[in-house]
Parts: sequence; C-alpha cells; structure tokens
Amino acid sequence: MSGTAQIGVTGLAVMGRNLARNFARNGFTVAVHNRTAAKTRALVEEFGSEGSFVAAESPEDFVAALERPRRLVIMVKAGEPTDAVIQEFAPLLEEGDVIIDGGNAHFEDTRRRERELRERGIHFVGVGISGGEEGALHGPSIMPGGSAESYESLGPLLERIAAKAPDGSPCVTHVGPDAAGHFVKMVHNGIEYADMQLIAEAYHLLRTVAGYSPAKIAETFRDWNTGRLDSYLIEITAEVLAHVDAATGKPFVDVVQDRAEQKGTGRWTVQIALDLGVPVSGIAEAVFARSLSGHAELREAARSLTGPAVSPLGEKEAEAFAAQVEQALYASKIVSYTQGFHQIQAGSETYDWNVDPGAVAAIWRAGCIIRAAFLDRIRGAYDAQPDLPSLLSDKRFGDEIGAAQDDWRAVIMEATRQGVPVPGFSAALAYYDALRAERLPAALTQGQRDFFGAHTYRRTDREGSFHTLWGGDRTEVSTD
Amino acid sequence: MSGTAQIGVTGLAVMGRNLARNFARNGFTVAVHNRTAAKTRALVEEFGSEGSFVAAESPEDFVAALERPRRLVIMVKAGEPTDAVIQEFAPLLEEGDVIIDGGNAHFEDTRRRERELRERGIHFVGVGISGGEEGALHGPSIMPGGSAESYESLGPLLERIAAKAPDGSPCVTHVGPDAAGHFVKMVHNGIEYADMQLIAEAYHLLRTVAGYSPAKIAETFRDWNTGRLDSYLIEITAEVLAHVDAATGKPFVDVVQDRAEQKGTGRWTVQIALDLGVPVSGIAEAVFARSLSGHAELREAARSLTGPAVSPLGEKEAEAFAAQVEQALYASKIVSYTQGFHQIQAGSETYDWNVDPGAVAAIWRAGCIIRAAFLDRIRGAYDAQPDLPSLLSDKRFGDEIGAAQDDWRAVIMEATRQGVPVPGFSAALAYYDALRAERLPAALTQGQRDFFGAHTYRRTDREGSFHTLWGGDRTEVSTD
Repeated sequence: MSGTAQIGVTGLAVMGRNLARNFARNGFTVAVHNRTAAKTRALVEEFGSEGSFVAAESPEDFVAALERPRRLVIMVKAGEPTDAVIQEFAPLLEEGDVIIDGGNAHFEDTRRRERELRERGIHFVGVGISGGEEGALHGPSIMPGGSAESYESLGPLLERIAAKAPDGSPCVTHVGPDAAGHFVKMVHNGIEYADMQLIAEAYHLLRTVAGYSPAKIAETFRDWNTGRLDSYLIEITAEVLAHVDAATGKPFVDVVQDRAEQKGTGRWTVQIALDLGVPVSGIAEAVFARSLSGHAELREAARSLTGPAVSPLGEKEAEAFAAQVEQALYASKIVSYTQGFHQIQAGSETYDWNVDPGAVAAIWRAGCIIRAAFLDRIRGAYDAQPDLPSLLSDKRFGDEIGAAQDDWRAVIMEATRQGVPVPGFSAALAYYDALRAERLPAALTQGQRDFFGAHTYRRTDREGSFHTLWGGDRTEVSTD
Repeated sequence: MSGTAQIGVTGLAVMGRNLARNFARNGFTVAVHNRTAAKTRALVEEFGSEGSFVAAESPEDFVAALERPRRLVIMVKAGEPTDAVIQEFAPLLEEGDVIIDGGNAHFEDTRRRERELRERGIHFVGVGISGGEEGALHGPSIMPGGSAESYESLGPLLERIAAKAPDGSPCVTHVGPDAAGHFVKMVHNGIEYADMQLIAEAYHLLRTVAGYSPAKIAETFRDWNTGRLDSYLIEITAEVLAHVDAATGKPFVDVVQDRAEQKGTGRWTVQIALDLGVPVSGIAEAVFARSLSGHAELREAARSLTGPAVSPLGEKEAEAFAAQVEQALYASKIVSYTQGFHQIQAGSETYDWNVDPGAVAAIWRAGCIIRAAFLDRIRGAYDAQPDLPSLLSDKRFGDEIGAAQDDWRAVIMEATRQGVPVPGFSAALAYYDALRAERLPAALTQGQRDFFGAHTYRRTDREGSFHTLWGGDRTEVSTD
C-alpha cells in the first residue's frame, strides 16, 4: 500500500505550516500531521486552495498517505521533542524511507540519530533551513546532510521549494553525510551573530562619534547597501533605523530596551569551534556582547566607572569618519567569514564530510538571513581555488582588506579614544594582525608552560620536544 | 577491621606520588597503591624515609589499610580512567567513606559521580588541586567540593598539606557542595590562560613597539613584580625572558617555536561560561590566541597580507610606553578577574553552591599558578561587600582602572596603529566600555531580530513584549 503524497510534514507550528504550504504551492501533494489534529484541519481549511494537501489525523494515517520511499519532514522543537517524534514514527516506516529533521538540532544529536536510524535501514537527513517564517513559505536556503542516496530522492523536491540565487540556481545542495547540514546551518547562524554585532558597532559609532541621528544612519546604511555591503541585514538595518515609534514620535531604536536575546546556535558555534581548535573570536564577541547587554545589574553597577565623554565630530569629519566605518565594517566582515569558513572546513575534516565551501557560499546567496552579494565573491574564491587555506588567502579579499586596513585601524583608534566599545572590530583586527605576524608571543607562553608544568616546547632550529630544568641548572633535556 | 592509614592515594604518577609524599611529610600515615605495583614499591623505596607509607599491592589491601571512615584519593587521568577506578573501589567501601578525585575532571562528570555515589552512601569529593608537581609536593592550593560532612573528615588533612598564604592561613576551603571545587578550579585555569595571554601581549609590545631586548624586558617584568603586579606568573616570565639558550647563545624565547599548546580547561571555562550567559571575552581570546598560533598553514598563507611595519619608539618614548603597558596589563587583569569571578558567582547560583568568592580569592593567594598579591585585594573587596555585583563595583578596583584607562587606551591605539595584535587588551577594554555604556546598540539587534524572526522586543517606557508588523503597516502589537 502506498499513498499519493510525495512528501509529509509533521509539526505544524508556523515553520512547519509554511514549509508544507511551500511544497504544496510548488505542485507537490503534501501529507500534513500535527499532534493536535485541530492544527491540521486549520491548515487545510485556511490554505487548502493553495495546493494538494492530505490531512492525516494519526501517525498511521500520515505514514499511509506517503508514496514510497516515504519522505517525512519533522518540524518540532529541537532536543527531546524531536527524539519523541522519531520514536513514534520510525516503527511505522520501512527500509529506504527518509526522515527529515528540519529543526535547529545540535549536530551531535543529528549524528547520533543518523547512526541509529541507519542501522534500521532508514535514512535520516538533518536539514538546516534558514530564512525564518517568510523563507519557509517563499523559499529558504536549505542545507541537507544525510546519505547521498537520500539526496537523490529528496533533492529534486528541495530544489523546487528553495530560494533562487540571482543566477537562478536553487539555494540547496547536498552539504555532506550525516550531520554536515546541521553543522553548516549552525555556523551560518554564528556568522549571522557576527554580522549583526559588526552592524551594531557601526551604528553605535555613527550615532556617538559621528553624531548622526537614526534617520541619517538609515540613509547611510541604504547607501552602503548599494555597494559591496549589499545584503539583507544591511537593508533591514536601514528599515529598523528609519522606523519611528508611533506612540512617542521617537526613533524606534530609542524606545527598544538595549538587552539583546539569543536562542543558542551562536553559543553552539563557539563551543564547537573551541573543540575543533578554530579561533572564531568575532562570533564569540557577538555572543558575549548579547549576554553582556542583558546583565542589567552589572551594567547599573558599572555606570559610574571613569571614561571619556564622547565628543561628536564636526560635519565634515563625520562624513569622512562614516566612510572609514564602512571600511572597518567590510574588513571585519571578511574576517568573520574567514573564521566561519575555517570552522566549516575543520568540521568537514574532523567528521569526514567532504564539504565544498564554495557550494555552501552559493546556497547562502538567497533565502537566508546572511544573504548578500558578498557570498557570490566567496563562492568565486573557492571555485577558483578549492583548497584555499583561508578566505584571507584569496587575492581579491586580501587586496580588499589590505586597502581597508588603514581606515579600519583609524576607526578602532577613534573608538578606543572616545570610549565606544567595538569588541567585534577589535577582535577581527587582532585576528588579522596575529595571522600575518612573523613571530607571535606564543613562544613565551610555551616557555612559561614548560617552567611551571614541564609541558615541554619545540625549537625553531631542530626537531623534537625539549624541557629546560628550570628548577635546577637550567640545562635543556630532550623529552622524545 | 580497620587499617592505620589516615589517607590513601591510588594512582602514583608524578602528581599522585608528590601528593602522597606531601601527606607523609606532614605526619600522616599514607596508604599508596598503583595499578602496576612496581610504581608503588619504587615510591616507598625512594621516599619511604620521608614518613609513614603503607604499600598496598591490591585494591583490597589498599582499602583494608585505611582507617574508617576511609579517605581515598584517586589521582588518575580525568574521564574514563577515573570512572574505571571508582567502579573498582566503590564496591569495597562502606557507608560514610570518602572518595576524593584530585584530577582535572569536568565538573559535570563530578556532579554525576557525586550523585551516583551519594545514593550508595559514599561521599564523593571532587577536589581541584593547583600548583603542578611542585605544588603537590610542597603545598598546593586546594579546592574541595562535596558534602559539608566530608569536609569535616577531610578538611584537617588538607589544611596541613595545603600552601600557606602570606598571613599563614592554609590555601584550602570547603568551596561548596558536589562539583563546586572542580568548577572553581576550572575557572582558575581559565583566568590563568587570560593572565598568560595578557603577559604575552605586554611582552610583544615591549619587544616590537618599545624595541626592547628579552633581557631588558626581563628587567622590566622584574621591576613590575615589585609593585601591584607582584605574582608568580610575572616572576617566571622574567626568568624565562632572561634565560639564554646554551646551544645558540640566543635569547631562549627566540629559539622556542611560537605555537602555544593547551590541555582543555581553558576551553571548558569558555564553553561553560557560554552556557551560563557570562561574557568571558578575555579567557576566550586567550584560548583563541593559542589555537591561532598553532595553525601554521593559515599563518604561512597570511604572511603576505598588508600591514604597517613596526617602527620602534625612541629610548625616552619607549620608557614612557613601558609604563603605559604596565597600566594596560593591570587594567586588563582586573577585567579578567571580574569576568572569572562573575562566572564563579553565576555557577554558584545555577547549581546552588553558595560559593564565597572572597574565600576563593583567599585560597588562590598561594600554591597555585595565579598566586598574586592581587588576590588579597580581591579577597578584601568581597569581605567588605559579600554581595558585590562585580569586581569593578569595588571602589578600589574601580578607582585603579579609572586611573589606568588613559594609558590603557593609549597602548591599544599604539598597538592598533603599529599592527601588533592585542586581542586580550582590546577585549578587556571593550568589556569595560560596554559595561559602563548608558545605551548599547543591542536595541538595534533586538529590532533586527524582530524584523526577520518576529522575536519581539521590550520597550523602555512600558512593560510587556511587543512586535512590529514589519511586513505590513508597521503598527506595533503586544505579544504578551
């Protein structure tokens, strides 16, 4: 017995509902199911005219409604709810069927689930979906992991509902086996945190040092959006800054509490980067900036600390400064993406995913929050040199950051002088300067570690590990 | 049947051996045991004259040698080896006995082990021990968790073998229940990473911008060590920098490879801080700096990137600059400790440990790697005001950092101008400036999140959560 639906979606909160509608609007017959059947009926009542839905009241009905091999998308909360739904459906499935997890799962959970279901002959595909509610409905950026075989069955459907890049290609690719998709989605979110932090710093500098109004800054961002910073986040920044609060007549940004919240994927990105030994200082500073902003009691207690009072620049100087801020923002953005792609490559090597970084950049060009013209340049860099050790090694990015660096430094110096916090800009520059340094003071660190913990060190002039007898006559011994 | 040994140590690698000797040298009878009995025999042969040892060949002999309630210290590798040894010994123990884990366990493992053993009536005490091999032998800083009852039995022994602070008090206290000791030890190590990174940056600036030789910098650190920076790490920095490599006649620091290694507790500190929502940017930058230094291929590829060539200052300016670097180092150090103690307080609240931060500062005054005069001032700050929201709220630290901030800024500006990476100094200043800011750009971040994800925001002028219909007519709706 086989049903007629090409795909099924269970879990009909807003993301699941919109994804189901997207499939239906693209001509697929979609089985829909929810724990409480009222939501299923509501979906079909409200949006049934958009396409072909099969409303299923029970898990058994739902599974029976699907054509074989079954493709079943789970859209529930990450963590235990996902495991519960998998446990509920797996016994009803057959070899070769495909379970798709479209939530924001931790990639380690996805690895575990994929392994367990593979033993039962079921394909488990962790899929990163970016673009929020609107993306889910009109075309998200889709990052599927799982087996190559599952992508043969699933890919054609995803390619239909995915966002289309400016060149018309769908924003979906088989990222790699098992958890590669969820991992890459996690890093996407980490980069999104960094992008937002850098924009926040640029805004803060224009507001304080340049003395611009939110409306004027909105104009500035609109202008930047016509250049190399052209991106969704710059575009909506201008929208938010231009918005006036109806209740007070004040700029909207001035009536919003300055306590940023977060949902966890930025934090995960940094935690996993630490495990992989990848420096992602830009993402870390973005996550920390959000948590710092929320510590009201600490901020209150620190208000009286000494610091310079900001003295805004004159009009002419402000204009020149704003242009420098654009350079600093762009240079720092190159560093953020360098760090994020380093993490993707390190994850790919550690877990044997064989991820193509150029293909990842390509599917981020539309549908997702960090979509930007910039990503086409990253794709180009990796297409030209697939084994690029780092984005900074690409000639074009290297040249651009080199041309930006004087202004980048000037902005950080001015912020430092005037007491405006720029953790993201500073961390990015420190990364840049550390990476290009001929010698780092890490040699001193190794010497200290050998002194207090006999941790040994390596020499620049010969192979092997060595230890100095610091507590004795300070001769050197080989420890190999 | 009860033995005569007041304490037992199993696992006789260098840390376990030295700890056992420390107990014996302080007049305790110590049962010693190792998986391979040769090590046990070697210990007694070599050091038997130092005190009273009971060599046990089997786990049964070892347990039988201990007086009741038994106190049994495990000194094996963290992770599975620790679990294996616990599984081996627990069945041989009786209610009220105490198992002490002196390794660098992850505090989550300690929580689990404590819970499991408590159900069997056995006290499990995770103990952080700092000071390396020398500390274990001559007096470490000791951070025991576990039940208050276990401390009654164990405390008197630990107080005898612990390091003594300048005022004579032993560097051990009952930190708090279950994993409080291992947690605090973890943060200690995170702070140690940050301290070492800040020292590395100070050295790097003196070497490049001031143009000092390692010998001259050793002198400078020696001088600093007579002032408020007086500490073990500053002292050994001078030793390492003054050391000349016998093989080449070059400064030792110049023949050591500039690739710093790490063992994991710094990384854990940052990962746990992220879970707790505590910004520990100084520790994070220290961990990242070590991992960056180890990415030889990225560094090689980045060598050709554009940047300023460092032009060393003249003699007079260099001297003034060195004094400013001391200010920057001290101010950044205050921030590192502020962040570390914030993490301890957040952990204490989350896990109900009721940790006394002043007591923690007190037991770090001697025996451990971060021992410093500075810790006595931290203890004083918390003793004067136990509910201090942040170290920066202490008047003395606030005044000191306020007095240092002009020089701190000058150093970062000079480093930025000359292209010398100062991730730690910069992150610390950004934290300081963010914390004291009247308004942060986090309001813009919240606006963006509401725009693309309907994540809602709070207003400054009234209670509740709100959402603006960005895709519609941009009216505001209450979402409570």
